[in-house]
Amino acid sequence: MRAVDIIMKKRLGQALDEGEIRFVIDGYVAGAIPEYQVSALLMAIFFRGMSPAETAVLTAAMLESGDRMDLSGIPGPFVDKHSTGGVGDKISLPLAPIVAACGVKVPMMSGRALGHTGGTLDKLESIPGYRTGLDLAAFRAGIAADGFAMTGQTERVVPADKKLYALRDVTATVESIPLITASILSKKVAEGAEGLVFDVKSGPGAFMKTFGDAKALADSLVRTGTAMGKRIVALITDMAEPLGLTVGNFFEIEETLDCLEGRGPRDVMDLVLRLGAWMLIVGGAASTPEEGEARCRQAVASGEALKRFHANVARQGGDLAALAKLRGTWRSPHRAELRAESAGFIASIDAWKIGLAGVHLGVGRNTTADKVYPDVGFIFEKKKGDRVERGGLVARVYGKDEESLKPAMELARAALAVSPGAPAAAPLVLEELSAS
Amino acid sequence: MRAVDIIMKKRLGQALDEGEIRFVIDGYVAGAIPEYQVSALLMAIFFRGMSPAETAVLTAAMLESGDRMDLSGIPGPFVDKHSTGGVGDKISLPLAPIVAACGVKVPMMSGRALGHTGGTLDKLESIPGYRTGLDLAAFRAGIAADGFAMTGQTERVVPADKKLYALRDVTATVESIPLITASILSKKVAEGAEGLVFDVKSGPGAFMKTFGDAKALADSLVRTGTAMGKRIVALITDMAEPLGLTVGNFFEIEETLDCLEGRGPRDVMDLVLRLGAWMLIVGGAASTPEEGEARCRQAVASGEALKRFHANVARQGGDLAALAKLRGTWRSPHRAELRAESAGFIASIDAWKIGLAGVHLGVGRNTTADKVYPDVGFIFEKKKGDRVERGGLVARVYGKDEESLKPAMELARAALAVSPGAPAAAPLVLEELSAS
Repeated sequence: MRAVDIIMKKRLGQALDEGEIRFVIDGYVAGAIPEYQVSALLMAIFFRGMSPAETAVLTAAMLESGDRMDLSGIPGPFVDKHSTGGVGDKISLPLAPIVAACGVKVPMMSGRALGHTGGTLDKLESIPGYRTGLDLAAFRAGIAADGFAMTGQTERVVPADKKLYALRDVTATVESIPLITASILSKKVAEGAEGLVFDVKSGPGAFMKTFGDAKALADSLVRTGTAMGKRIVALITDMAEPLGLTVGNFFEIEETLDCLEGRGPRDVMDLVLRLGAWMLIVGGAASTPEEGEARCRQAVASGEALKRFHANVARQGGDLAALAKLRGTWRSPHRAELRAESAGFIASIDAWKIGLAGVHLGVGRNTTADKVYPDVGFIFEKKKGDRVERGGLVARVYGKDEESLKPAMELARAALAVSPGAPAAAPLVLEELSAS
Repeated sequence: MRAVDIIMKKRLGQALDEGEIRFVIDGYVAGAIPEYQVSALLMAIFFRGMSPAETAVLTAAMLESGDRMDLSGIPGPFVDKHSTGGVGDKISLPLAPIVAACGVKVPMMSGRALGHTGGTLDKLESIPGYRTGLDLAAFRAGIAADGFAMTGQTERVVPADKKLYALRDVTATVESIPLITASILSKKVAEGAEGLVFDVKSGPGAFMKTFGDAKALADSLVRTGTAMGKRIVALITDMAEPLGLTVGNFFEIEETLDCLEGRGPRDVMDLVLRLGAWMLIVGGAASTPEEGEARCRQAVASGEALKRFHANVARQGGDLAALAKLRGTWRSPHRAELRAESAGFIASIDAWKIGLAGVHLGVGRNTTADKVYPDVGFIFEKKKGDRVERGGLVARVYGKDEESLKPAMELARAALAVSPGAPAAAPLVLEELSAS
């Protein structure tokens, strides 16, 4: 078998068989197939695509390049949620303890902020002392005790994805539905989940800018994951506006506590409850979305979800006393205010521009080497549809230094649109897909 | 400027500007841009194409990566011919001395056999003593004295093409019209020709299997070469059947002598005269194809073309006495005969299969490391349209060893089709293109 023949086959638009896909992935990880052949194949895949069957084989080959989290001995079910990344997207943080409180275990491996999107690990690490680099024993212990644990990927989880993703990043082959599918699914299957609920973001603040692209990815995730024997549900949700009232690492921890105390922002809670309901259904703990939502609501009302969150913070090294003390007060001294230039209604707050502004402020990073800050970002006073006076406060803005505020405020002002009339309400959940 | 942004731009189907193309080519040759980015860009170019303006910039950037043949001080005009490669394609060998005899100088840089196609250098080197690796001084001296010289590319001619071609070969990105155009044109312009006549082969024995592909390449060569300030004509010619009666290195030298002595096979002479006529027109030495053909015919009839060929052989180290002695007798002892299995007319002799058979026999090579042999190949007694008896001799076949004959004869038998009626005559020259 020769790599060049496999590239040619895909270039011609033909389906690759299991042997060919495994030959490339195994050879690439082993260093036997050079990067210049892999990158040419990736570009051919970008143009020609892959069938769900090919994508499932690719996912399995990538998955088998490394270790899987061994959750045996812990009673399940194990269900995780994955978001394709948004702005102000702290959904995982309240969601995991709520679902765990309902009896479905959540083995959650998360990522870091990159580009305009935030990262769950960065948010958690803003809690003083919190550790996200769990070894397998600590990850298992957290899941067994609290029903969920939060960690980053170890080096040994899907090394093929690490190599492939780094190569895609420098060869303009990131935006390929089958490659994105295999990258996401291989990592999620490796963490031991039996069922998965995907939150595929669509809109200006998402990687998938159009509903069509988001739908194609959601469809590919459902079909490929199902072909791999997993129970899969995918929601396509709107990412035109930032989620919730905060964009910032510690600010989003504060908002998580608000949610778990039953006073979270409407949009965040709506999405948490809907995703939680589907996780319960996938895990066999609810029959309908309505039943699932009711159970999640009860986990909040009873205080059980908050208790689980506190237990997790303590178990992963976080300082609960410091968290309580810092809450509502930990704000960078470098600050500005976003104010409305005319009276009317907030017509939109562009999530993409707010995300980019967040990178300037120190919420996110342009490269993996950049440092992020806990006490910076946006705290919104108004959201889309709210009435605002001319000169009225829309958001408080906190930066890592004075210099960071200027480009961030330019972006923030450009992100804000005020209209004389109230904007039409838009649904947050655009579509729900499952295999059946 | 970043290579990844250039790849993305081409992936999206946008035209690259001069700075971007030069950034990639210069960076690649200098080792600053890694092969994995170049191969991804090549695949994006395969799918998205390049405009004639982009292709001209690419050609110029490749050309400037190395040395050009300096022909200053030698009176011109300088015109060369390039064929995209065929089976039995010895056209360059009689053509160069004929055109030189008509007063147009031919600075010819040729290639070697690869795959199913033969190579002019391999044919010339079958003449005992003949050297094809001329330095600039020897190349200039030959052109000044005999009106033409035959050499291979030096290491310093278009190093960008050598690197790019090697990369395309292992990444399934050879078959791209703009990349083929830039590869061919950069080398031809580097050799100092002011005008170029292309013989773009079309059909089963050619790289371009369909007329549409051949036309696209011919069109790209004319438009790109013209954009670079060269006078360009391209002929699209049929490569369904092998050209002439011989396929083999020394066998084709013998056939060249036949042509220069005025008794070459009809198809070879037709094509030589037509290409020669266009070379004279491009060089300003004839006004019409008819006038050009007449002048070429006269160069053969007068013996001047043969004299030039002999002079070239002697100047490049070839042994004229040995050539005369070996002519008609230098045949491998490992031989077979291709005979008709039924009576009728030769309907076709598939050039592709004969070319592949030639690789087995030792005419050509699969990799550049393979050795080729002088005294092997096919000598046809019958061609398409000839009447043949059942069991009648169609070709004598010579192999490098006994073992080589079996696969070659299988291919040769599969290549031969005999029909009860005479096949329709097909034109050899399918279309002629020029910029005007």
